Amino acid sequence: MREDKEMKKHCPCVSEIVTRRLSLYLRCLLMVNREGDDYISSKELAERFHLNADQIRKDLSYFGTFGKRGVGYNIEDTVSQLKELLGLTQVYNVAIAGAGNLGTALADYPRINRDSFKIVALFDRDNRKVGTKTKTGIPIFHISELEEKIKELSVRMGIISVPADAAQGIADRFVESGVKGIMNFAPVRIQLPPYIKTISADFKSQLEVLAYYVSKIKVGE
Amino acid sequence: MREDKEMKKHCPCVSEIVTRRLSLYLRCLLMVNREGDDYISSKELAERFHLNADQIRKDLSYFGTFGKRGVGYNIEDTVSQLKELLGLTQVYNVAIAGAGNLGTALADYPRINRDSFKIVALFDRDNRKVGTKTKTGIPIFHISELEEKIKELSVRMGIISVPADAAQGIADRFVESGVKGIMNFAPVRIQLPPYIKTISADFKSQLEVLAYYVSKIKVGE
Repeated sequence: MREDKEMKKHCPCVSEIVTRRLSLYLRCLLMVNREGDDYISSKELAERFHLNADQIRKDLSYFGTFGKRGVGYNIEDTVSQLKELLGLTQVYNVAIAGAGNLGTALADYPRINRDSFKIVALFDRDNRKVGTKTKTGIPIFHISELEEKIKELSVRMGIISVPADAAQGIADRFVESGVKGIMNFAPVRIQLPPYIKTISADFKSQLEVLAYYVSKIKVGE
Repeated sequence: MREDKEMKKHCPCVSEIVTRRLSLYLRCLLMVNREGDDYISSKELAERFHLNADQIRKDLSYFGTFGKRGVGYNIEDTVSQLKELLGLTQVYNVAIAGAGNLGTALADYPRINRDSFKIVALFDRDNRKVGTKTKTGIPIFHISELEEKIKELSVRMGIISVPADAAQGIADRFVESGVKGIMNFAPVRIQLPPYIKTISADFKSQLEVLAYYVSKIKVGE
């Protein structure tokens, strides 16, 4: 896609698909780590989490992480390397535009406000919400304060959960205030400078992708 | 990935990435269609929605859809073809397990309950919620009724918005009751038979992917 090519100029990045796999390996290794093991082989990891062992080895070796013959990967070291690689050794302040059901659900999503991410603000234009807090204590500001709060709170990631017709305007304001990455839940495509990363998390698109497979699957009917 | 290969045996499907692009083209064409034009070229479509014109032509021609030299694609015909291709000429009944903030936000998400998707039920174990309805009128049943209601309501897609430790159990019950596609919002990987399509919509993974790019972007700092 064109964006990917233009992004390349600004960011020496691997593709989103590879990034998603690395994030998945990290999740799996963290689960294994909690059980107290020191090492895991790509084969064990693959079997346990329904992954592909060759792919794991290929992905990890590409980034300089190699398993030890016979014992596999040192779990703690690999976790550290993946965190470093994914940029998860920093803390990212995140703001959410739109304090509806979805916005507040995301703000209070379990296990988000730990380690790498800190949701610091929601914005809404509904004066009944402004000045209140979500269940987990995240403040809701008026949407007119967006620019000021983004700067004040050093927000680097923005989440859009406003109606479709307001999404582009909010995205522009996020970017002008210094936000570098946007996750868009509005059912509309937003256009931003090529050095801004946008992830579309539109629920209806995801259902459509699922529909494609469900309509084709013939087994077990 | 291994799942993709196994899925191939059960479903003559293109990859999830291609499917996502087709869903995106459909979204863009529906927007253009509302403005009353009859034709649009791949170049116009690409410029307007920040897509890649070559990719559009390649993707659509792969499925037998060709533009007319000089005028481009007939918008209505292409919309119909994409809907047919994506399996969107049918209606899919959808159930959501977990009637927390996220579950109810998804149930009441704007413009979902139209055309191809019908969210027919939520399930929860909280007796205070059971027997009530969401804002848009979708009934909440007790989780113990899951199997019965899935069959009764001919549900083909299941959405998981329960805590991580309950996700696998719910997924298994969905599949045993006849669900063919699952969207999983729980921050855990679920394992299912290869002929069941699973889309992971875990919010934290998506933030991690975004973090990777935000940590690497050097422009505009």
